[in-house]
Amino acid sequence: MRLIHLLATAALVATPIAAGAQTTPPPAPEFARVVDEGTNRSQVMVLAQHMTDVIGPRLTNSPQMRTAEAWALAKFRDFGLSNVRKEGFDFGRGWSINASSVRMVTPRPIQLTAIPIAWTPPTNGTLSAPIIVAPMSKSRHFAAWRGKLAGKIVLVTAPGKVEDATEPGFKRLTGEDIAKLDSYREPSYDPAAQARRNAAATFEEELDAFLKAEGAVGFATMSYRDNKLLHGEGYMHKAGASPSLPGVQIAAEDYRRLARLATMGPAPTLEIMSDVAYDDSDTQAYNILADLPGTDPRAGYVMAGAHYDSWVAGDGATDNAAGSAMIMEAARILKAMGVRPKRTIRFALWNGEEQALYGSINYIERYLARRPAPATPENSTQNYYNQTTRYPVTPLPGYRDLAAYFNIDNGSGKLRGIHAENNAAAVPILREWLSPFAPMGSGSVVFGRTAGTDHQFMAAIGLPAFQFIQDPLDYSSITHHSGADTFDHLKAADMRQGAMVLAWMLLQAANADTPLPRNPIPNQPVVTDPFATPDPNAE
Amino acid sequence: MRLIHLLATAALVATPIAAGAQTTPPPAPEFARVVDEGTNRSQVMVLAQHMTDVIGPRLTNSPQMRTAEAWALAKFRDFGLSNVRKEGFDFGRGWSINASSVRMVTPRPIQLTAIPIAWTPPTNGTLSAPIIVAPMSKSRHFAAWRGKLAGKIVLVTAPGKVEDATEPGFKRLTGEDIAKLDSYREPSYDPAAQARRNAAATFEEELDAFLKAEGAVGFATMSYRDNKLLHGEGYMHKAGASPSLPGVQIAAEDYRRLARLATMGPAPTLEIMSDVAYDDSDTQAYNILADLPGTDPRAGYVMAGAHYDSWVAGDGATDNAAGSAMIMEAARILKAMGVRPKRTIRFALWNGEEQALYGSINYIERYLARRPAPATPENSTQNYYNQTTRYPVTPLPGYRDLAAYFNIDNGSGKLRGIHAENNAAAVPILREWLSPFAPMGSGSVVFGRTAGTDHQFMAAIGLPAFQFIQDPLDYSSITHHSGADTFDHLKAADMRQGAMVLAWMLLQAANADTPLPRNPIPNQPVVTDPFATPDPNAE
Repeated sequence: MRLIHLLATAALVATPIAAGAQTTPPPAPEFARVVDEGTNRSQVMVLAQHMTDVIGPRLTNSPQMRTAEAWALAKFRDFGLSNVRKEGFDFGRGWSINASSVRMVTPRPIQLTAIPIAWTPPTNGTLSAPIIVAPMSKSRHFAAWRGKLAGKIVLVTAPGKVEDATEPGFKRLTGEDIAKLDSYREPSYDPAAQARRNAAATFEEELDAFLKAEGAVGFATMSYRDNKLLHGEGYMHKAGASPSLPGVQIAAEDYRRLARLATMGPAPTLEIMSDVAYDDSDTQAYNILADLPGTDPRAGYVMAGAHYDSWVAGDGATDNAAGSAMIMEAARILKAMGVRPKRTIRFALWNGEEQALYGSINYIERYLARRPAPATPENSTQNYYNQTTRYPVTPLPGYRDLAAYFNIDNGSGKLRGIHAENNAAAVPILREWLSPFAPMGSGSVVFGRTAGTDHQFMAAIGLPAFQFIQDPLDYSSITHHSGADTFDHLKAADMRQGAMVLAWMLLQAANADTPLPRNPIPNQPVVTDPFATPDPNAE
Repeated sequence: MRLIHLLATAALVATPIAAGAQTTPPPAPEFARVVDEGTNRSQVMVLAQHMTDVIGPRLTNSPQMRTAEAWALAKFRDFGLSNVRKEGFDFGRGWSINASSVRMVTPRPIQLTAIPIAWTPPTNGTLSAPIIVAPMSKSRHFAAWRGKLAGKIVLVTAPGKVEDATEPGFKRLTGEDIAKLDSYREPSYDPAAQARRNAAATFEEELDAFLKAEGAVGFATMSYRDNKLLHGEGYMHKAGASPSLPGVQIAAEDYRRLARLATMGPAPTLEIMSDVAYDDSDTQAYNILADLPGTDPRAGYVMAGAHYDSWVAGDGATDNAAGSAMIMEAARILKAMGVRPKRTIRFALWNGEEQALYGSINYIERYLARRPAPATPENSTQNYYNQTTRYPVTPLPGYRDLAAYFNIDNGSGKLRGIHAENNAAAVPILREWLSPFAPMGSGSVVFGRTAGTDHQFMAAIGLPAFQFIQDPLDYSSITHHSGADTFDHLKAADMRQGAMVLAWMLLQAANADTPLPRNPIPNQPVVTDPFATPDPNAE
């Protein structure tokens, strides 16, 4: 750390004092200094290792996330950033796993591979009960199982089949892959499909209520990846609305075996020990923000963000300690370089992304724009689905200040370029800014838009908010949300490149003569097929 | 079962009685009858499911294997085979897992993914101790750790890195892949390399003795596959020579995290609970044999075999319930068809294959040929390594009786052809026999030889013993010895095809006018490089 401060100081005060030094090297161009700082004094893997190995999984509002919040604030201050702060918003309970065990005890003993589902209650000792396989994925499936679940551990997933891994699990993008991303994707809105999604979004709560009413004693889902990987996502994180029953996700191989044995009969008996704990000490979740102040207070600011929270099966390394560490490292690089950008550069670590982009939505509502409140109460998943169906969008005074937003949330893979998110006018500018990184594999600006992470609802209101293109590596095949999302799956060289690209792009956006062009603020959803006749029986 | 018996009866007595029936369909050719029986009345998946889901892993001499032995004997008798028997040989102890748990308790609690190593002792409750990372893979590595291991759980594997899965995990062979197998592989013997392998083969015992002498309280290895897969192989199965210390194999991601945290310090503390049990009720292991008698007692016999034993992380589905079920199904098909082959057809389920081809070596020594006893005592791994270095080979009277041997041990993939195992004269004959299966994907006879399974030491003494070529599917990438080796990874259509090919090839070999050609019995090992100067410092 000491080295970094010395460098930062030297750079900041270079003109008056260094003039008196014996030897003053000629100033290197900014690009070369980004690469020097980001390569030769890189901290990105040290930061990522602390987030993952030392702190561990960072479920929103968990004790581990509280540690992570405090650590990130301290680290940003230690780097010398300004206005380092956390901004709270309502979220719900914390939850963490201390220990767990799931065993089949009859017809033969097997230690199963399983994980408690997030926010399910503890078993308070060992729960022992026979299973019943009762696949339910919609509330209309409940009727078939009424009266059959009392005293049972209910296996609610249809077992399905092993998915053959006919594609490589680890992949880097070819030029052809990237070219395919360079196409316009029209926003779409199908009111009937939207209604179905909203209905499906309450299934977890409905299932819990049904299982409780039927006297089931626990439930299990099947992992959606094969080969013994586990994930354990759950969404009932609101205070006063926790699941009634202990629940575990069981590895696909173990789950399917249980299902086959249950089909043959007699039903296997499971023992579940789920030593998990809620933490209600603070129901607010917090975004972490830090600034590198600009020299022109009227020029607005540029921002980069990554979600800091994770699921708990692994350590949230590729999702998204990787992006969080790149954000922090970009801040460190720029501060160490002593840059004095025209616009303020803001660094954001979002929280609650995994439960429905809580953090970035909160930032939008606080600073950028408001949409009408929902007509009927929504859970967080519905709030996510319905963002782009609520109009009008009313910009707040801060709307004009945000000159660019860059998001990172696709693992540790090299940044190969950037999605212009349907912002045609921004394409040539982004391309020019990115061009020095072409020899490091990152020269591509593609037109297409992306979704599912924190830039999404900024881009949706016309802001110049972009997601990077990343080499997928084993993100979608293996690590995303899984128990294998650990530090050893991060690629150090890729992470260093990512932090440098990010630092550089922020600097270009912060110093640009004119801010990036924006798209218009939409005033209604695009109805994909205005003459469609809704099918009430659609799946 | 009833249906099968009726059909078998009808076929056996077709001529005198069926003549009086109202309608006698013209006899179908044998090939069509194999396909009819093996497709329309297939039992192969039912057999495999019983071996895996119901019986479970079949570690040699474990209680599960005892159940499996009794079940296979009953099943062969139920099919109507003759001379159904088990043949015992010295093996050692049984061992099985009842429950297990491995947790990191400091610096933060994590339920780790881990499995007890085969034949390690139980912890008798929970063992709690700090770890030390002390990579040791050769006895010369011990010196560096002397005096440092007392009271510790010793992590003995070097952590290494994640291996990027740049190839598909699931694969079927292309014609090009198969063509590559069609090449001669010279037997090879490098005395210096052989000496090193023999020395390495005692490492497990030496490590155990060292850890015990140093006062270590337990040990852990790292899984050799990434992505949380586990295996848990261990080889100290001899009575009176069990490991001294409890040992677990830890998933690579979890192990590497422990190693990184230990490097940072303070060393993490683990809690290991290994509820495993030995079974010394019978130290003999058993091959299962069953005959379909030939009509010409002087014509000898043909045989097919698969090893029945497995490791315990999964249920031993692809390794090798798949092959075992194909063997049993081929027996059922041929018996149901009522064939009366010239030569006896023998079906073998080998035991102790995973610990060094115990079962098939025992069969060879009992019936086929003897080699000199080793000059110095050998453990089972050394016995495996040294088979083809001990000369002369002395044929037993049964040597001439074995007219063909077919082995299956590469998962549930479709049989794509057969390895002629360097038996050039057999190639055209095998090709002719196999030709009707070309439209089912199994037309290829390749020259190359294979090793590592039960035909190996029969082929090595000149016998016409062959291993099939199989589509690899996810065998080498995922299921081989792993916790994902479960019934759901078996491909039903492939398994049916395999049993039919096997039944057909046995029938051709049993009825051939002349037995298959043999290679000469070798009288010394091929020394690969007679003028090599051994490098005493070689790895």
